[in-house]
Parts: sequence; structure tokens; C-alpha cells
Amino acid sequence: MTDTSPVKLAKSLIACPSITPATGSVFETCESMLEPLGFEVSRFVAGDAPEQADLGGAVENLFAIRRGADDSRHFAFAGHLDVVPPGEGWHSDPFAPEIRGDLLYGRGAVDMKGSIAAFVSALHQLPRDLGTISLIITGDEEGPARFGTVALMDWMAERNIRPDLCVVGEPTSVHRLGDMVKIGRRGSVNMWVTVNGTQGHVAYPHLADNPITRLGKILSEIDELHLDGGTDWFQASNIEFTDLHVGNPAHNVIPARAEGRLSIRFNDQHSGDSLSQMIREIVEKHGGKLRPVISGEPFLTPPGELSELVATAITDVTGVEPELSTSGGTSDARFLSKIVPVVEFGLCNATMHKLDEAVAIADLDQLAEIYALIVRRALG
Amino acid sequence: MTDTSPVKLAKSLIACPSITPATGSVFETCESMLEPLGFEVSRFVAGDAPEQADLGGAVENLFAIRRGADDSRHFAFAGHLDVVPPGEGWHSDPFAPEIRGDLLYGRGAVDMKGSIAAFVSALHQLPRDLGTISLIITGDEEGPARFGTVALMDWMAERNIRPDLCVVGEPTSVHRLGDMVKIGRRGSVNMWVTVNGTQGHVAYPHLADNPITRLGKILSEIDELHLDGGTDWFQASNIEFTDLHVGNPAHNVIPARAEGRLSIRFNDQHSGDSLSQMIREIVEKHGGKLRPVISGEPFLTPPGELSELVATAITDVTGVEPELSTSGGTSDARFLSKIVPVVEFGLCNATMHKLDEAVAIADLDQLAEIYALIVRRALG
Repeated sequence: MTDTSPVKLAKSLIACPSITPATGSVFETCESMLEPLGFEVSRFVAGDAPEQADLGGAVENLFAIRRGADDSRHFAFAGHLDVVPPGEGWHSDPFAPEIRGDLLYGRGAVDMKGSIAAFVSALHQLPRDLGTISLIITGDEEGPARFGTVALMDWMAERNIRPDLCVVGEPTSVHRLGDMVKIGRRGSVNMWVTVNGTQGHVAYPHLADNPITRLGKILSEIDELHLDGGTDWFQASNIEFTDLHVGNPAHNVIPARAEGRLSIRFNDQHSGDSLSQMIREIVEKHGGKLRPVISGEPFLTPPGELSELVATAITDVTGVEPELSTSGGTSDARFLSKIVPVVEFGLCNATMHKLDEAVAIADLDQLAEIYALIVRRALG
Repeated sequence: MTDTSPVKLAKSLIACPSITPATGSVFETCESMLEPLGFEVSRFVAGDAPEQADLGGAVENLFAIRRGADDSRHFAFAGHLDVVPPGEGWHSDPFAPEIRGDLLYGRGAVDMKGSIAAFVSALHQLPRDLGTISLIITGDEEGPARFGTVALMDWMAERNIRPDLCVVGEPTSVHRLGDMVKIGRRGSVNMWVTVNGTQGHVAYPHLADNPITRLGKILSEIDELHLDGGTDWFQASNIEFTDLHVGNPAHNVIPARAEGRLSIRFNDQHSGDSLSQMIREIVEKHGGKLRPVISGEPFLTPPGELSELVATAITDVTGVEPELSTSGGTSDARFLSKIVPVVEFGLCNATMHKLDEAVAIADLDQLAEIYALIVRRALG
């Protein structure tokens, strides 16, 4: 009998190098795992048009579905097969999975080939007639995410495919498997502030207009903003200036331009647009210009059936009671949340994006058990 | 008879290239002009020790004196033979003086070989027994000014030489010869502000300490400072930020350090030290560090005998009534003012430091007449 343990499947996926954006062999491998389970697998490449070249493409995406009876619920598992670059200094080849002691080493072990492997392994533990199950797998989560999950959602919409519940397999656990489930994420926007003035000599300030003075007023007013005090499920929104630039080598010259950059992580009291409007008013009042780039809107799946389902499965398998959190960075759940209740749960994130990324083999086994329990109860 | 016209003498000086710091031939030429007039000429090089190499040395200095009777007054003329680099694009060789139309072209024509030539020419117009006259001439006014006029003053102090009145021949005229005399100059100080923080991810601001926030508070507090409202003779002191630097390419990272630079031009209500102390208190309150570099202290020779003497001579020769001003940058008068009442008066400054620097030959002649009248009345 074929070995369908999560560690065996994870090794197969890690062995396919797939630095973001990913295409090709890692998707072949994933497809070959799903077809024997009765899944109909579709793959397509997005973002490969010449005019899209500098937007992060080409990106491969995979959608797999095994349909239940007509009126059965539809449970979706979402994830990504691309990984961040390994960096220099690993103790073993990052794309040659290696077990040392209780750990499996390799790029993507926790973020998130291990999690996909655990879900596929869980499918082997489940009866085939449970209900509709799908996998929404992209090759562009670690990059710009322009042609990944968003393109998959378009693809699904064209085919009237809409899940009822969704779990994203991101590594949300912190100290031990199961201690944290993400039920939301903050939004993220970066903004570039440019203030043009009039260059001049410091001895004749009346003939110049110092843009640093105005940037200073902008900094000061933005510093005084109180966006919110947090909500039941979100910490307070927060603004940080991340860069300043003038680049004036002359000690006696008032420069012509001053620039700043800021980053806002925000909860569901705001949107990228509402914040851009708020900051733009301050910037323009002082004669500056604002260029906002929204990386992601916030999302929240309020505690309810789905989070309860996930939390109970975690506790039943591990004894751990998970914290429901909205902390940390952004993920593709921000897109999926527009069409389906979604939470994120996966492996421990201590080594993600780092050298010698590794997962405990015992965690892979328990995660497969948890995923199996979630799906069984969701569709049962 | 030798031609002792100012234009002839100016041509001789311009023909000796003397980009700052100056030594050698231009001083030979100057000495050869003064010895026939009965001056005792001393020359020495300062700043030539190996450990002084990066402070602007070696610099040549010239002190010339013709003593009157024991109790006669001592009038000093101060100036510099070094010039700023010519730059590219002149219509004639900057160190080959050339008359085109009514103008004499060449680097230093107005700043200030022309002025020195006018003073030497004036000496030819005066009787030899007027009183004590000296020339204080450096080769380092356009550079760091570390080993120029300051070294000359030390040299004079060692020999108990102290003038009673002094005119610096800087080009102070603006639209026409005689329209402005400088009776003071503002001081100048540059300050570097460094704020160290703790780097971190923008999603976890509680684990970081953003130095830009603190630099923003420093900017804001400094912007609110009111140094003074000006005085009878000085415009208000003024602070300008001239640079900001963080250099953080990562949009999602709170940087570890933020830097700023500011420049203060200040009147005699302040000193470089008092301002450094004032700014340091603000910077340190917000956890920053300050490094001040004082370029010059302010000076004022309050209107009185000397300015009256100079203004009257100007009006008598040109019909122009000069404005007594303290505007503009710094000059070596800031040093000399510590030992002698000093004002600055010289040619029109429209072309100084520019391409095709040029002086009107008629201005050279009138300036010689004015200088002669000043000395005659000062010592008469």
C-alpha cells in the first residue's frame, strides 16, 4: 500500500523547488496526489501576458474538487505551493527534504507545503462520500498575490463554484500546534508622501520654501491621529513612518523636495480608501502629495460555527484550547473572506521564512488528524 | 613711471592662479607691489603639519606694515588672495585677465583681488607719512579658514600689533559701487541630529521603537522655537532643516535610525554654544543625539566713527548713500572684530563665485579713490 503519511507527502512537495512565483513540477506533484483520491484537478497559468511581466507573473494555480451529492455542503481548503527564497547558510539543501531527529527540514516545511500534505493525508482518512471538498492552491502567495488566489476566485466565479466554509492552512500556531487560530487579519496600506518646496540659500530663507518644515508638520499631525481604540477582535490600528528622504549634501542649501513613507496596519473600522482620504487631507493641507498603495483590506470572520468547529477539533486532538486571533500580517484569506466564511489554521510558525525551516513530524500527523476531524464534522 | 592703476595691479594678481588654499606666486606678486611703497612684508605658511592635512592647509599668509610716528593711529586693510575654483565654461581663461568693453574679466576680479589692487593703488595716491597702515592678507578665506586670518591674528598678537580701525575689502556692493557696507554678519552653525530606535516589523510596533516618530517630535519642537525678533541691526535669527535621512528600503520595517541636519543663521543675541545647548535639550529630551559644528560667530561693529568714515567717503566719491547692513553670509571680519572695529566694503558682488567673474574698470578706479579718502581721514 502507498505511504500516504503527511511526512511522506510533505517530502514530495518540498523536493520540488518552487520559489515564488511558482509553476510546474510542484503542481504536477500535487495533482498526482489528488487524482487517486477522485478529485477533478484544473490548473492554469495567470499573469503571463507581456504587459503583466513586472506585476509578478507568470503564476500557476490549481483548483481541485470532489463533488458530493447535489445538496451537500462544500468545504474548501486553501493554500499555496510557492515559498520564499531559502537564503544562504542552511545545514542541508533547502529543497532536499531531510529528517534529523524528530524534525523534517526543508523550505516550505511549515509555510505551507507541510500543511497541504497534512490536508491531503487527512483526505485518505475520510470516507469519499462525505460531501463536496475542494482545494484552492496558488503559486503566488509570497509575492505580489496579483495573479494567485484572486485569479482562482475569478475562475471559480465563472463556474459558479462557491464553498460554504473555508480553512486556509497558513502556519498560525505559535508555541505549540493548535494554540492559535486566525479569524481575521488587519489591512495594510503603504503611503508615499512628497513635499515640493523652493530651493534656496539658508541665509535667505524668505526667498525659499523649506519642504522639510512642511513634512515636519505632516509628521506631527499624523502622529497625533488616533485611528481607533481597537475592537472586540482587533487590536488598535497603527501608523508607522518607515522612511524619510531628502538627499541634500549642501549644508547651506534649503532643499527643493522632502519625501516620507508610512505604513498603516488597520482593523475593520477602516478601509484602505478611508485611510488614504484621511491622510491625504493632512498631506495636501501642507502642500504635499500622497500616493497610497493598498496591500490588503482587513477581514473578520466573527466567532461562530466555523471557528468553533476548528477550535473543537484542535482541542479534541491535542488538548490545546486555541486563541482566536487577528494579529500578524496579511494572508490570502483577505480575498477569500469576500465569498466564504474563512479562518486560518496550520503548523507552528517559528521557523517560517527562516534558515533551516523545519516541522515536527508529530505535528504533521496531528494536523492531519485535526483537518480530518474538521472536514468530517463540517460535512457530516 | 610705473602704472599703478588698480586695473593694472588687478591684472597682475589675477594672472597668478590661486585656487584656495593659496600659496606662492600670488603672494610674491603682492609683496613686490608693497615693498616699493615702504612696507615691511612678512609671509608665513600655516597648516602644513602632517596632522593638519585634512583641515585645509597649507595656507600662505602675508602681513605688511608701514609704521607712522609712535603715537599715530593704525589703519588696517584685510583681504584674501585665494579664489574659488573657476568652474567650466568661461568665455576667456579665468587666470588670463582680459578686458572686454568696460569690464576686466578673471577669477578674483571682484572677490577680491580687484579690491586689494584698489587699496594698493590708493596707497600710491597718499602721502607716506600719514600714520601706521597695514595689510592683513590670507590665502584661506574661501576654504575652511582655519589657518588664515586666525593665524595672522596670532602672529600679530605675538608682536603686539593691534590696529585701531579695519576695513575688509569683501565685495559688499550690490547694484552699484557703494550701495552697501557690512557692519556685521550673522553667525552660522550646522547641527546633525541622530535618533536611534529599535528596528522591528510594522505589524508588531510594540516590539519596536520608531526613531522617525521621535525625529518628528524634534522637528516639530524646533519649528516652534522663536529665537528672537531681530535687533536694530540684525534680521531675526533663523533655523532651517536642510536634510533628512533614513534609507530604509523595506516597506514593512520600522527602521533603527533616523537622521536630520539643520542650519542656523543667528544674530548677536545668540552664540553658537547657546544655540547648541538650546537644540541639544530638545533633541536629548526625545532620545536623540546632537553634533553641532559652529562655522562662525556673529559680529557687529555698531554704527559710529568707522562706518561714518566709510559712508562719507563713498558718498563724496560716488554720490551714493550706502546702506549699513548685516545681511548675507560669513566673512573673515568675524575673526578681526575680536580685536578691532571692522566694517566690510568693496566691489559689486553680482559675478562673484560665478563664471566670467568681472569688474567694471570705472568701479576699480572709484574704489581706489574711496579707500584713499577713508585712510586719509582715518589717519589725518
